[in-house]
Amino acid sequence: MALVVQKFGGSSVRDAERVRNVAQIVTDTYKAGNSVVVVVSAQGDTTDDLIEKAAELNPNASKREMDMLLSSGEQQSCALLAMTIEAMGYPAISLTGWQAGFFTTSNYSNARIHRVDTERLQAELDRRSIVVVAGFQGLNKFDDITTLGRGGSDTSAVALAASLHADTCQIYTDVDGVYTADPRKVKNAKKLDEISFDEMLELATLGAQVLHNRSVEMAKKFGVQIEVLSSLSRVPGTIVKEDVKMEKMLIKGVAKDEHVVRITVDGVADQPGTAFKIFSLLSNHKINVDIILQTPPKDGFQAISFTISDDQKDEALAVLERHGHRYPGAKIYSEDDIAKVSIVGAGMQSNPGVAADMFAALGDAGVNIKMISTSEIKISVIIDRADADRAVSAIHGAFYD
Amino acid sequence: MALVVQKFGGSSVRDAERVRNVAQIVTDTYKAGNSVVVVVSAQGDTTDDLIEKAAELNPNASKREMDMLLSSGEQQSCALLAMTIEAMGYPAISLTGWQAGFFTTSNYSNARIHRVDTERLQAELDRRSIVVVAGFQGLNKFDDITTLGRGGSDTSAVALAASLHADTCQIYTDVDGVYTADPRKVKNAKKLDEISFDEMLELATLGAQVLHNRSVEMAKKFGVQIEVLSSLSRVPGTIVKEDVKMEKMLIKGVAKDEHVVRITVDGVADQPGTAFKIFSLLSNHKINVDIILQTPPKDGFQAISFTISDDQKDEALAVLERHGHRYPGAKIYSEDDIAKVSIVGAGMQSNPGVAADMFAALGDAGVNIKMISTSEIKISVIIDRADADRAVSAIHGAFYD
Repeated sequence: MALVVQKFGGSSVRDAERVRNVAQIVTDTYKAGNSVVVVVSAQGDTTDDLIEKAAELNPNASKREMDMLLSSGEQQSCALLAMTIEAMGYPAISLTGWQAGFFTTSNYSNARIHRVDTERLQAELDRRSIVVVAGFQGLNKFDDITTLGRGGSDTSAVALAASLHADTCQIYTDVDGVYTADPRKVKNAKKLDEISFDEMLELATLGAQVLHNRSVEMAKKFGVQIEVLSSLSRVPGTIVKEDVKMEKMLIKGVAKDEHVVRITVDGVADQPGTAFKIFSLLSNHKINVDIILQTPPKDGFQAISFTISDDQKDEALAVLERHGHRYPGAKIYSEDDIAKVSIVGAGMQSNPGVAADMFAALGDAGVNIKMISTSEIKISVIIDRADADRAVSAIHGAFYD
Repeated sequence: MALVVQKFGGSSVRDAERVRNVAQIVTDTYKAGNSVVVVVSAQGDTTDDLIEKAAELNPNASKREMDMLLSSGEQQSCALLAMTIEAMGYPAISLTGWQAGFFTTSNYSNARIHRVDTERLQAELDRRSIVVVAGFQGLNKFDDITTLGRGGSDTSAVALAASLHADTCQIYTDVDGVYTADPRKVKNAKKLDEISFDEMLELATLGAQVLHNRSVEMAKKFGVQIEVLSSLSRVPGTIVKEDVKMEKMLIKGVAKDEHVVRITVDGVADQPGTAFKIFSLLSNHKINVDIILQTPPKDGFQAISFTISDDQKDEALAVLERHGHRYPGAKIYSEDDIAKVSIVGAGMQSNPGVAADMFAALGDAGVNIKMISTSEIKISVIIDRADADRAVSAIHGAFYD
C-alpha cells in the first residue's frame, strides 16, 4: 500500500495502442493495492503541431496565448487516458493543472511552481480513484493558464510527489534507465541501478537528457525518490535518490555535450580586475559561463577563454563587442567546433587516479585536450567536436571494459 | 460606441485563412469604436476528430471525461483567434468558459448555464481588450468542466450578451440570414430583414437549423437582439427581436422536418381517460408528443395517432408495449415515411385565408395531407416524406412568387 506518482511522456501516449499500454501499467500498479497519481504530457507531436498552427497565424504570439493554446494538449491526453482506464473497469478522473492545484509564478511559457494545493486531488484519492493529471501546466495569480517550460511534466510529477508525500515518483520514458553513456552510441554502456541526485544533475547538465535538471533539483530539495524506467519494457529502471550506497563502480557516466562554444578575448591587459570586468558583464546579461581558461601573461597582456552554451553565443559576442572600450585593443573571437566530454561520479576528487585514467585514455585515442575543469563529482574536458564520439568510447572503455 | 457580442461557428474558423477573415471582422467592429466580445466554436472537424479518438479508446466514456476532452477544442480556437488579432496590432485576450465566468448545472455534456460572472470579462473590456471566449463550455459546482450540448456556442454568446447588457449579439454562420425556405432547395427563397423570437422559435423547431432553440429562448427571455449573418459575405443579415413591425409579408417561412415518426394505437376503448392514459405515460418518460389525431369512434373503439421526434421512436414503442394491459386488444404501430411541413408567421390565426391558400397549394401539387396542426403563428401538416420537397416548393410558390 504505497502512494505512487507515475509520469508518462508524449511518446508513451502517442497513439491509442500506447495509451492502452500506459493504462495497463497504471492499473497494474493500482491492482497491487497502491494509490496512483498519473501525470501525462501531450500526445506525440500534438505540441509541435499546435506551435506550427500558431506560427502560421502569429509568429510572435504572446506567451500568454501560447500557454492557453499548448495546455490544451495535456488536457486532451489526460482525458483520453482517464477514459481508457474507465474502459478497463477502474475508477479514474482527469484533472487539468489548475484543477490539480498547481499554482505558479506569472511568467508565461516558463512558469515556476509556487505550491500544489492537493485538497481536491487528495479527495479523489480518498475515493480510490486513479487520478490523471495534465502535466506541464498551472495557474497564475491572474487566473491565467501557464506552462512550465522544458521538462515541465517531469517537474509536475516531482512536485506532486513532494506535495502528496508519495513513496516514489516513476518517470516513464523511452529508455529504460540511466546509462553510463549513450547506449545508442557506446557499446557496453551499462544501466545503473542507482544514482545520486548530484550525480544525476551533473549528467543532465552534461547532456544525458534522461531527466530535466529542474525536476532533479526539486526532487533533491524535497527528498523525492525518482525511478527512471521505460513504458515499453517491464524491467526495473534506475533509482535516483539522495544517498547511494558506495559501489566499486566509481564512475556513474560519461556524457557528451556538443552545444558549447568557446569565446576568447585575446590581448587583455594583465591587471587586477580585468577578468572581473568581463565576467560581471556576462553575468549581468544572464550569460552562464562554464569553463574558464586564462593564458599566462606575456608582455603585459593575456588571453581569457571561456565556454558557454551555443544558444547564448550571439548575445555574448554582441555584449563583449559593445563594451570593447573596457579592454582596448583586444581581439574577440569564437570557436564552434568543440565539445565537452565529462565523467561523473561521487568521490572523484579523492581518487586522483580517475583523472589520470581519463587523460590517458584520451591520449591513447589521440584526442587533444583544450581545456579542463574539475569538481567534486565530475571531470570535464573540452576537445575538438570531431573527436567527441571517439573520446566518449575511449573513456567509457577505460572504465568499463 | 456599442458593446457587441460576435459568435463564430466551427466552419467560420476552420483554417488559418478563415481565422484571419474572422479577425478582420472583429477588428473592423473594434476600430469603429465598439467594445467587442467574441465567442468561438472549435475549428472545423476538431470536435468530431476528438470524439473519434475517444471512441477508439472507450466507446462508453463517461460524459465528464468527454467534456474534459471536447472543451479543449474551443480553448485552442479562442487562443488562435486571440493571437491572430494580436498579429493585426490590436489588444486581445482569450478566456476559457470558466475564466469567462460561465457557471453551469452539473450534468455533463448537456449542462445549462446558471449564471455568468462577468467580473473578469468586464475588467478586460475596461482595458479596451478584444475578449475572445471559448464557447460551448462552463464549470459546475465540482470545479469540473462541462459542455453545453447542441447549439452550445450560440447559447454562450446570448448568455454573454444578456449578462453584459450588450447592444447586439451577432451570430455568424455560413448562411447570410434567415430565409423563407431552405435557399439550397427552394428557388426564390427570400432573406428576411427581421423576424420575431416566436417566429424564429417555430422555424428552428421546424428544422430551419439556423439558430438553436435554446439560444433563441434565452434571447427572448432576456431581450437580447440577435443578428444572424454570414462570416463570408459582408451583407446585412436577419435581425431576431421581440417586436417586429407588421409587414405585408405575413408568412415568415416554410420549413420541413423529416425527423418525425407517427405512432398509432389502434383499437382503444372509446372511454373517458383513455387518451390521458397514453399521453401521461409518454410524458412520464419525457417523450414529447407533437401532433395528435383521434379518429371518430366506431363500435366503441377508436385509433389514436400522434407524431414524435424519430430519435424517441424506439423508446416510445417500448413504453407503449410494456403498458399494453391499459388498452387491451389495441394494435400499436409506427410510420417512418412521413414529414412535417409548416408555415410560420405572426397573426396567422386571424387570417384564415392563409390556411386555405396552403391547403390549395398542396392540393394543386397532388400532396395528400395526413394530419394538420395549427397555432397562433404556424400551420403544420404531416404528409408523405416523398412529397416533402415538392410540398415546400408549392407552398413557397403560393405565397412568394
